[in-house]
Amino acid sequence: MTWTRHHILSLADWNTQEYNTLLQTASSFREVLSRRTKKVPALQGQVVTNMFFEPSTRTRSSFELAAKRLSADILNFAPGTSSLTKGETILDTAKTYLAMGTDIMVIRHKQAGVPHAIAAEMDRLNTGVSILNAGDGQHEHPSQALLDLFTLCSLLDFDQPRLELLQGKKIAIVGDILHSRVARSNIWSLTEAGMSVHLAGPPTLLPQLFSQIKTDFYPGQLSLHWQLEPALIEADFVMTLRLQHERMTDYLLPSLREYHQGYGITRDRLKLCHPNVKILHPGPVNRGVEISSDLMDDSNFSLIQQQVTSGIAVRMALLYLIGTLAEERSEVKHF
Amino acid sequence: MTWTRHHILSLADWNTQEYNTLLQTASSFREVLSRRTKKVPALQGQVVTNMFFEPSTRTRSSFELAAKRLSADILNFAPGTSSLTKGETILDTAKTYLAMGTDIMVIRHKQAGVPHAIAAEMDRLNTGVSILNAGDGQHEHPSQALLDLFTLCSLLDFDQPRLELLQGKKIAIVGDILHSRVARSNIWSLTEAGMSVHLAGPPTLLPQLFSQIKTDFYPGQLSLHWQLEPALIEADFVMTLRLQHERMTDYLLPSLREYHQGYGITRDRLKLCHPNVKILHPGPVNRGVEISSDLMDDSNFSLIQQQVTSGIAVRMALLYLIGTLAEERSEVKHF
Amino acid sequence: MTWTRHHILSLADWNTQEYNTLLQTASSFREVLSRRTKKVPALQGQVVTNMFFEPSTRTRSSFELAAKRLSADILNFAPGTSSLTKGETILDTAKTYLAMGTDIMVIRHKQAGVPHAIAAEMDRLNTGVSILNAGDGQHEHPSQALLDLFTLCSLLDFDQPRLELLQGKKIAIVGDILHSRVARSNIWSLTEAGMSVHLAGPPTLLPQLFSQIKTDFYPGQLSLHWQLEPALIEADFVMTLRLQHERMTDYLLPSLREYHQGYGITRDRLKLCHPNVKILHPGPVNRGVEISSDLMDDSNFSLIQQQVTSGIAVRMALLYLIGTLAEERSEVKHF
Repeated sequence: MTWTRHHILSLADWNTQEYNTLLQTASSFREVLSRRTKKVPALQGQVVTNMFFEPSTRTRSSFELAAKRLSADILNFAPGTSSLTKGETILDTAKTYLAMGTDIMVIRHKQAGVPHAIAAEMDRLNTGVSILNAGDGQHEHPSQALLDLFTLCSLLDFDQPRLELLQGKKIAIVGDILHSRVARSNIWSLTEAGMSVHLAGPPTLLPQLFSQIKTDFYPGQLSLHWQLEPALIEADFVMTLRLQHERMTDYLLPSLREYHQGYGITRDRLKLCHPNVKILHPGPVNRGVEISSDLMDDSNFSLIQQQVTSGIAVRMALLYLIGTLAEERSEVKHF
Repeated sequence: MTWTRHHILSLADWNTQEYNTLLQTASSFREVLSRRTKKVPALQGQVVTNMFFEPSTRTRSSFELAAKRLSADILNFAPGTSSLTKGETILDTAKTYLAMGTDIMVIRHKQAGVPHAIAAEMDRLNTGVSILNAGDGQHEHPSQALLDLFTLCSLLDFDQPRLELLQGKKIAIVGDILHSRVARSNIWSLTEAGMSVHLAGPPTLLPQLFSQIKTDFYPGQLSLHWQLEPALIEADFVMTLRLQHERMTDYLLPSLREYHQGYGITRDRLKLCHPNVKILHPGPVNRGVEISSDLMDDSNFSLIQQQVTSGIAVRMALLYLIGTLAEERSEVKHF
Repeated sequence: MTWTRHHILSLADWNTQEYNTLLQTASSFREVLSRRTKKVPALQGQVVTNMFFEPSTRTRSSFELAAKRLSADILNFAPGTSSLTKGETILDTAKTYLAMGTDIMVIRHKQAGVPHAIAAEMDRLNTGVSILNAGDGQHEHPSQALLDLFTLCSLLDFDQPRLELLQGKKIAIVGDILHSRVARSNIWSLTEAGMSVHLAGPPTLLPQLFSQIKTDFYPGQLSLHWQLEPALIEADFVMTLRLQHERMTDYLLPSLREYHQGYGITRDRLKLCHPNVKILHPGPVNRGVEISSDLMDDSNFSLIQQQVTSGIAVRMALLYLIGTLAEERSEVKHF
């Protein structure tokens, strides 16, 4: 069970063993979080820098708490008050935090590929610094998909969450597939787990071109639907995606109300699913849009709170796995 | 001397014993703060989340330092960059931080009742999380009133601050009573201490309806004055309230200058008071408006610096008392 | 090797012994930073408050990490959300953080003299609090000049950086001298080191009045040039200064392109310098303006990354030296 992956940028090429190592490590940290003293000294003295070029409270707080519980030192890069407005390039900003002694950079940017570009530069300079993609444009959001995976596997076997538990299960991913980095990362992990993944959304948010992806990369595992119902039939899990308000002003939707009528998850529609169906949502939720308000609060169906809790354990596991690797190379860094 | 209060929302129903427990605990922490190592491990591993929906530097810093000195982990919720702008409800934001493992939420909101609503939801969900109201609209600001109380009692007996010391003393609370959550919380604690509380302010900021409150809740203890002088006569303490500039544009005041002429505390006016009179102000101060600039800096009269220092000890005491309670219930929280 | 300087406001009156103590202390901390556990308990329990009235990410992060590695508690004063917008004076804000228990204030302000004014008030009140100027207007930025000095001396003798190593060396400081607090602080330290300092820039950014300063304070050590070439000839070091974009709208420059043609550092121009010439820049860099992009990335010439790394060690040394002094007086502070 050795770990060799230095950056967490995309789930595209993760294999089953890596997923299982991550799930087991997260499970150990969940155990730590139930103790009276919720801290371990694993990353003591290491510096984790949160570089959220795109504002975020939820994900940043989750990474921050995870890093604190590993006893790391944390620097927060604040975009509004930053050198970026002074003409500095993103790579130069990253190199500045490198030179300060950063070991792990957690990066969010509204443009796809920014974490990859920084990772490539860090490798080219032979720095030993790890990059963790916390969401890049409409591309990927690996830690979100991993916490979803951990939540699902833990539901089926709390003590030994592992990929094979999901084999043959059906999940519906509903909503704004086109713009969702959460969906993109989840498709990689859920198909690797052997699930049957059904995407559903209006044509403007689930365009025809996804058929190509489906055929090329996921033969027999990925289905597309412009109607909600076929995706829900006998589904074990339903993952609704956040609908951003600006989609309406982009002329992609007539109104939030009509979206809810067509694709909102309600108690009535859940009757199509497997009786034990559970609902996921990456948050923040627009109540009454993606999901009816009462359903969101019904702990018989909703896994939304568990997803947030899983986030701490999964992010601790990610920081720990790459941080332990990074430490081995850390001698080369200071001039 | 056991503590049973789980949330700190309002001082309306605090009894003398609770005030005295708080004062004694704060006194112990003040002693810790005078040591070389100013930290205690009391809340190690616990998470204190500052949720300041209304911006604040002073109060947030005070809570943050108090939590650090109790060795808690701190998360700061930043309103500007938050999920709230993405359509999430306040309760859902609170539940997200709950799911991350928050033990105590320190909440400020411009709308009265928000901390109470969150506390009710936390109790309904049986979470064990404690809510500390750090100022809600024009309603209450309990930690400010408690640090005022601690400052006053410590002045009279530094080593054993207790409520009975204030029995029969006269305090004038001057200024914008109508909009002041500081005044509201202070009225509860100061009348419980048996003080004679005199409110003074212009009719627009101390409306007639306060007479009703006075008669109903505080017979014989609360007096109202539209002139400053009767409130000051023989007063042991004068508490001036912050005058917010927007009150002028609200047509509640002719000008800051005229306000100062009518209700500003000056050296001359203090002659009406008891010779040992002391002045309090919750800060930040508009020099030359609520109080003359030279008086504010005169340590013979001003307790303003002591109030800030008291704030750390009192907030450590509050976090400690509710945190110790919360810990006992913390097993139920992680799924 | 005793340290007696309580505030770090300006380098104008630093003597050689002080510079050498600082360089040696920074060298020790650099060694600490190369260890597995990069922390020392030197300032445990002390409070360092960052008061950046002017936004900054780079310098604030550097001070924050330095303070964390000394185990201090850190408070961040955020100007946008502060009491300043509520009418409080800067001195009152500082006194509030004093009353909370601050031991060291790190202050940046766009107006020259603010750190000095606060230091004077802290001394007048006999508080024992130390002030560290992190950049005041166009006046001084001592920690930047000290990290530059540490970088230069470490280049010449890594293990024993000391002032005499720079004796007789030539440095060109290029660009917007008029507005640069970095230049002003560096001129003090580099002339004290016995260097030959050559300032070069366009007349609008290096006005005639500097000749007066040159003659009065630095006879024989400071030269002024409105052309770049004479400054570069045989130079051992070239320090380029940041060019702020607003200089163009101030009508001080025709265009960034013309500035680069006249004063930008390029590979071709470096041929005028000593063959081992090194380049410094305080950052953030406008690539292709102050310096050509490829040159900035050439580690044979550029010391820019080392400057950032030096910043952590130098700021640890500053905080440590004044913090150790401050601690001796700390008993007087709590009421």
